[in-house]
Amino acid sequence: MEFIIQKQLFSSLVSDVVKVCPSQSVLPILTGLKIEAGENGVTLTGGNTELFIIKKIPLQVEGETVVQLVEPGQGMVPAKYFAELIKKLPSSIRISIRESKITVSSEEISTKLSGYADDLYPELPDLQGMQTIELPFGKLKEAISQTAFAVAKSDSKPVLTGVHMQVERDRLICTATDSHRLAQAVIPANSSMADNFIIPSKALSELSNLKVPETALIRISKNGQFAVFQCENTVLYSILLEGMYPKTESLLPTEFLTSVVLDAEQLRSGIDRACLFSGEWKHNNVRLEILASDRMKITSKSTEIGELEEVQNILHLDGQLPVQMTFDGKYLLEALKGINSKKIVIGFNGLMKPALIRPDKQHSTLQLLSPLRV
Amino acid sequence: MEFIIQKQLFSSLVSDVVKVCPSQSVLPILTGLKIEAGENGVTLTGGNTELFIIKKIPLQVEGETVVQLVEPGQGMVPAKYFAELIKKLPSSIRISIRESKITVSSEEISTKLSGYADDLYPELPDLQGMQTIELPFGKLKEAISQTAFAVAKSDSKPVLTGVHMQVERDRLICTATDSHRLAQAVIPANSSMADNFIIPSKALSELSNLKVPETALIRISKNGQFAVFQCENTVLYSILLEGMYPKTESLLPTEFLTSVVLDAEQLRSGIDRACLFSGEWKHNNVRLEILASDRMKITSKSTEIGELEEVQNILHLDGQLPVQMTFDGKYLLEALKGINSKKIVIGFNGLMKPALIRPDKQHSTLQLLSPLRV
Repeated sequence: MEFIIQKQLFSSLVSDVVKVCPSQSVLPILTGLKIEAGENGVTLTGGNTELFIIKKIPLQVEGETVVQLVEPGQGMVPAKYFAELIKKLPSSIRISIRESKITVSSEEISTKLSGYADDLYPELPDLQGMQTIELPFGKLKEAISQTAFAVAKSDSKPVLTGVHMQVERDRLICTATDSHRLAQAVIPANSSMADNFIIPSKALSELSNLKVPETALIRISKNGQFAVFQCENTVLYSILLEGMYPKTESLLPTEFLTSVVLDAEQLRSGIDRACLFSGEWKHNNVRLEILASDRMKITSKSTEIGELEEVQNILHLDGQLPVQMTFDGKYLLEALKGINSKKIVIGFNGLMKPALIRPDKQHSTLQLLSPLRV
Repeated sequence: MEFIIQKQLFSSLVSDVVKVCPSQSVLPILTGLKIEAGENGVTLTGGNTELFIIKKIPLQVEGETVVQLVEPGQGMVPAKYFAELIKKLPSSIRISIRESKITVSSEEISTKLSGYADDLYPELPDLQGMQTIELPFGKLKEAISQTAFAVAKSDSKPVLTGVHMQVERDRLICTATDSHRLAQAVIPANSSMADNFIIPSKALSELSNLKVPETALIRISKNGQFAVFQCENTVLYSILLEGMYPKTESLLPTEFLTSVVLDAEQLRSGIDRACLFSGEWKHNNVRLEILASDRMKITSKSTEIGELEEVQNILHLDGQLPVQMTFDGKYLLEALKGINSKKIVIGFNGLMKPALIRPDKQHSTLQLLSPLRV
């Protein structure tokens, strides 16, 4: 295999793929980057035990030749060192792999890299004829940012460490819960299938970081043990978490004893300040008190650091008073960060029942948060 | 003590001081920030066992009132939490300390912070009537960046862990060496004293990070066990390293067997690439070879990763051929980064003698580097 390629473009795409390759692995082949060159261009594949990323570089981009194919073929290079080297080379780069001998040259610089004796890279499933759901990348990214933080951090219930994706005919529902809180986002989408699967949160965070325009359409499909995300010249394969995801529909309250409308930015800032005094796990408490219909008091206290008390205006209140509830400050702050709206609504159903937080004018996303018993 | 202060300005200055305060210390008082308020404004003092930073905030800045003094006095606050809190508060902030009870409030937010039972903060020496050397802050910063990296990283010879500053009537000479390499910068300056002292490199790195305009004049003086750096409203006290700094003047060669002029940027990039193959300590070797008067070959090799070879143009050569020398790649790269000039000169004096690297048209800075024996 041999080809000459434009440095800037190549370096940036190599970095995008290589960042998921481990530096060390029980499967040494995963520390490598697979390069294929042919009439359709250059394809880069890298991955770890949980996900793979493929980037395709056509021979021409916008009428300009970016790859000159000398000899088609494929080979493996050591991912991290190769990416570092490409970054440091000037102008156009010639890459040749013959019998696992790797030569990289540019201008008057020539380098030889040690290759892989064994180049058996994992086979990824074929993408032909799969059923897909299609939606803008930006919308999927937003849904991930609104849910992925709420997955369980411990492995005691493995299915809860992923985000549950329910594909329906006209929408995608993303749900995450660690059993103390639940986050959900619903995105309108065009689907040729109905299915559901659980994606590890790590794969979703890589998916969010893909350098793809927000408006580009992303196609999601399921193939054997993988979920496949295709967008422009990028494909991301993620393993699926096996098991049944708990039924969450019935957990979502639709009626509330008290519901309040608050300024989102002001509340976020207030909870952020209160969290300063709720840093220790035992005292991670932020207390909300509504004694009159126009004022909410936020308090937090740490024996070691100090205490904070502040009062915020309530924009609108329905239902009964008083409300006095204590939440985990960090969870509350994360829930509020998941909501992208100027005003937010919090619905309370008494001391022991979870509160529901959502934007004031739409129902596309919600956060459910259990109170702490104090 | 009580005063009201503008948030933005205060938050930024508090952060600047607090970043040198330790989170934990055998001297708990050092985890605190000392605040003094009086007719001259507010003074913030923070430090650790090696250095102290003082920031002064006048009552008015450019005709605008930034501090409203309610009651003069002084007190201690827990540095890290105080800085975090101030950052998160809106608009103007009221701070009151009475009998080590700290209250911080802003709009409808009120917080109490736990204080220090004992508020005996270390006494810093008075600044009145000291002899000083005066130079632009930007020039000192440049000299630090050209020398501080070359100090010894191990404590076996403590004086070598600092930068030697020689104050003469019309210039300041900064020298650092770890006995394998030596870096020197000379800055013209106005001095009312002649003295020399050794400053720990950590203090110099804090000094470089001070948020002070490059053109502002900085005054350096020595007071007892401290070097004192004064610039605008900031004072930095650094402890001095005790002991005799080795005589370095005689080490600097003035004549060379071979001297070459090279393009600085191209050489830096080449050595940077070569270092990719010299990462392991044992094989940290980058080899320079000059066989003809217009070409220099750079090579490096790692048994595990691979090898690199590149050829660069020599702009000018004086003296004898061939030159074949091996250097520590990392040291060579650091030396080259210390030189801010389009062309650089390297002077060689044979296999066992150090090479001297300097900008082509001025003698204000130089780097001396011992070759490796291979």
